[in-house]
Amino acid sequence: MKEEKNGFLGIPLTERGQLLAQGAESEDGRVWGIERWLVRKLLQKMGNPAVAVRYWDGSLHENRYGPLTLTLRDRGALWRLITNPFLNFGDDYSTGRIEIEGGLVNFLEAIFHAQRDWPDARWQDDTLLTRLLRWQTSTLSAARNNIHHHYDLGNDFYKLWLDEEMAYTCAYFPTADATLEEAQFAKLDHVCRKLQLKPGESVVEAGCGWGGLARHMARYYGVQVRAFNISKEQVAYARERAKQEGLADRIEYVEDDYRNISGKFDAFVSVGMLEHVGVERYRVLGEVVARSLKPDGRGLIHSIGQNRARPVSEWTQRRIFPGGYPPTLREMMEIFEPQGLSVNDVENLRLHYARTLEYWLRRFDHHRETITEMYDESFVRAWQLYLAGSQANFSAGILQLYQVLFTKPGKNDIAWTRAHLYQPRTEH
Amino acid sequence: MKEEKNGFLGIPLTERGQLLAQGAESEDGRVWGIERWLVRKLLQKMGNPAVAVRYWDGSLHENRYGPLTLTLRDRGALWRLITNPFLNFGDDYSTGRIEIEGGLVNFLEAIFHAQRDWPDARWQDDTLLTRLLRWQTSTLSAARNNIHHHYDLGNDFYKLWLDEEMAYTCAYFPTADATLEEAQFAKLDHVCRKLQLKPGESVVEAGCGWGGLARHMARYYGVQVRAFNISKEQVAYARERAKQEGLADRIEYVEDDYRNISGKFDAFVSVGMLEHVGVERYRVLGEVVARSLKPDGRGLIHSIGQNRARPVSEWTQRRIFPGGYPPTLREMMEIFEPQGLSVNDVENLRLHYARTLEYWLRRFDHHRETITEMYDESFVRAWQLYLAGSQANFSAGILQLYQVLFTKPGKNDIAWTRAHLYQPRTEH
Repeated sequence: MKEEKNGFLGIPLTERGQLLAQGAESEDGRVWGIERWLVRKLLQKMGNPAVAVRYWDGSLHENRYGPLTLTLRDRGALWRLITNPFLNFGDDYSTGRIEIEGGLVNFLEAIFHAQRDWPDARWQDDTLLTRLLRWQTSTLSAARNNIHHHYDLGNDFYKLWLDEEMAYTCAYFPTADATLEEAQFAKLDHVCRKLQLKPGESVVEAGCGWGGLARHMARYYGVQVRAFNISKEQVAYARERAKQEGLADRIEYVEDDYRNISGKFDAFVSVGMLEHVGVERYRVLGEVVARSLKPDGRGLIHSIGQNRARPVSEWTQRRIFPGGYPPTLREMMEIFEPQGLSVNDVENLRLHYARTLEYWLRRFDHHRETITEMYDESFVRAWQLYLAGSQANFSAGILQLYQVLFTKPGKNDIAWTRAHLYQPRTEH
Repeated sequence: MKEEKNGFLGIPLTERGQLLAQGAESEDGRVWGIERWLVRKLLQKMGNPAVAVRYWDGSLHENRYGPLTLTLRDRGALWRLITNPFLNFGDDYSTGRIEIEGGLVNFLEAIFHAQRDWPDARWQDDTLLTRLLRWQTSTLSAARNNIHHHYDLGNDFYKLWLDEEMAYTCAYFPTADATLEEAQFAKLDHVCRKLQLKPGESVVEAGCGWGGLARHMARYYGVQVRAFNISKEQVAYARERAKQEGLADRIEYVEDDYRNISGKFDAFVSVGMLEHVGVERYRVLGEVVARSLKPDGRGLIHSIGQNRARPVSEWTQRRIFPGGYPPTLREMMEIFEPQGLSVNDVENLRLHYARTLEYWLRRFDHHRETITEMYDESFVRAWQLYLAGSQANFSAGILQLYQVLFTKPGKNDIAWTRAHLYQPRTEH
């Protein structure tokens, strides 16, 4: 098609470089016609979300008005948004060149609701400009250095806004009004109940975070746990807590990769690690699972997922979660099917993750000043965007949270129904 | 390898024709050394199941003895078993050339337990002989005409051994001691609860059998149902019952293919049809599902499945269920993922199907004489083998039963937890 040949949004290739250079550099405060036209086109491409755009001169874009407004503080922010919305929206929100009114979560939900029904392919094609103009984006990543990656951040940061047990994964709210602490406890228990753990059994955990699930299993279910994690700092924290809480004889925290798991166990469990594994390694993970389970073994994998296989947004990928990817359920089956493992139960808890994130974001905001002192303002805004964006992704139904319970094939001493998961909790 | 080059089990190609001809035709009652050797090899290939083999001369194969014995009534049965075990075991059991002692279900469970850990590929390669000797099997299919295909059999046959509502799919036993009638009622209710049906809503059903689910939904949940089925006889039965039971104004039974479903509904449901759809049509089924659901819609698909993608045994395929195939969960995702449908809950009820089949087999046996009069002895034996084989497949964990609950993406008024499925049933 002619439009495609001429480049992004039909701007002739010869003129585009000039236009962009002017756009990024002009000191003229007026909003040009071409800029209003570009914003209209961008919103169209995004499925016309119910949001307004305010320009740097105070004028409003003639879109559907509502309480939700995106303000572009300068011309550069507009051109950066046009060239690579997925990366630059996040960066410019972090540095304050973009402001949101009406609530960040609400704004992102509106965007995602419109996005959900996007024909992906068209949008992907339209990043053409990004590819042609990569020279520009490479000079525009000043925000990057302000944002520390997840695993450099340290325990003190997470302690501020996670629960007591430092669970950095989706909680399970037995009732909608449970507190975050209750819901994280209930999540750990929900996992243990699904696994039907019995005293004296052995469990191997892949990716144990700060060790909360291992402590719960050892304390309330009397099992022996070997818990793997490659993060030195998390393992040190987990070991210290197990010692303090008198659980050190029942838990061995191992600072090593899941691929080095050896031995045979009654149960395999992994909560919130799969997102970092990468689909191309699922078959290897499945081999690890199958070889670590006794003939009577069972396991549970808890992971963020999605309905369709789509790449993670460039901003999240580059600024927050390098290498993260939420699989579809089909992709997850690469773990189980080649090993002939039997999938027994899949539960989707996406609304529980939206609720969990709501709590985290509220606590994060509560400690805003402390965190600004620890890092800086743009770090705080980046993390707010990340938490709010995740919440909106779960509530809009773009992200899912799957708990997959599986067994060795032919294991028949499984729960007859799932009713036992919903009985009042017995005293342990 | 040399063995492969020489043909099946290392018998030189030049000798094999002769040997087989002798084997099938000789009137000499003695069991040859080569025959004992072939049986040993066959059992090895099958993972050495804990079964004994008795020859036509009364001698026993020197395998692990136990209560489970397969008796070969004549030399031909042995050679037929060697050439194509998957087809000829069934046919020769049906005609009585093969007898089983120790219980058919137990015998098949022993076979399947050994089979479960088979490396499939090796076994597939060993059907070489079958392919080379297809001329032989084509003359050995005398039993075929004695066995009527599923859908020619008529309502009177199924009435003898199914429940009142004529549910020919896996029941759900809330407790292990429920009766079949209670369990079929509970299954229909379990499906309705998962779908959270509300009075006045509209439901489309694909593949409605004798219409029991449609009646349950209309009677107890007050919904309007459009139920599709291509079987004239089943539709006639379903219409008549709906009329008799005063439900005709709430149910429309349509004698048509699921691909011709039109209109928009609150819920889509299909219980026991997917097995007949064929994986290559799952995407089309998904399109039908997606286009028939309102933005707020949800659905449930209930189907036999399996852990690994393997073809159905040739006997079942040719004698009982032409065109049937139980998908893996990965394969089922072909329905949902391309449409961006959100999978909310997957429950595996394979042990409930083993129990259901136990009931069916018991009732079938109870009416054995009547059914023999309706058809003949080999029909009865074929169906006993099919029901017993299915039971053993489910109890050995080779077959699975998946109920997959799904929604349009972003539907948020879903049950907060699954606890509501396990509350005492409220009065409808």
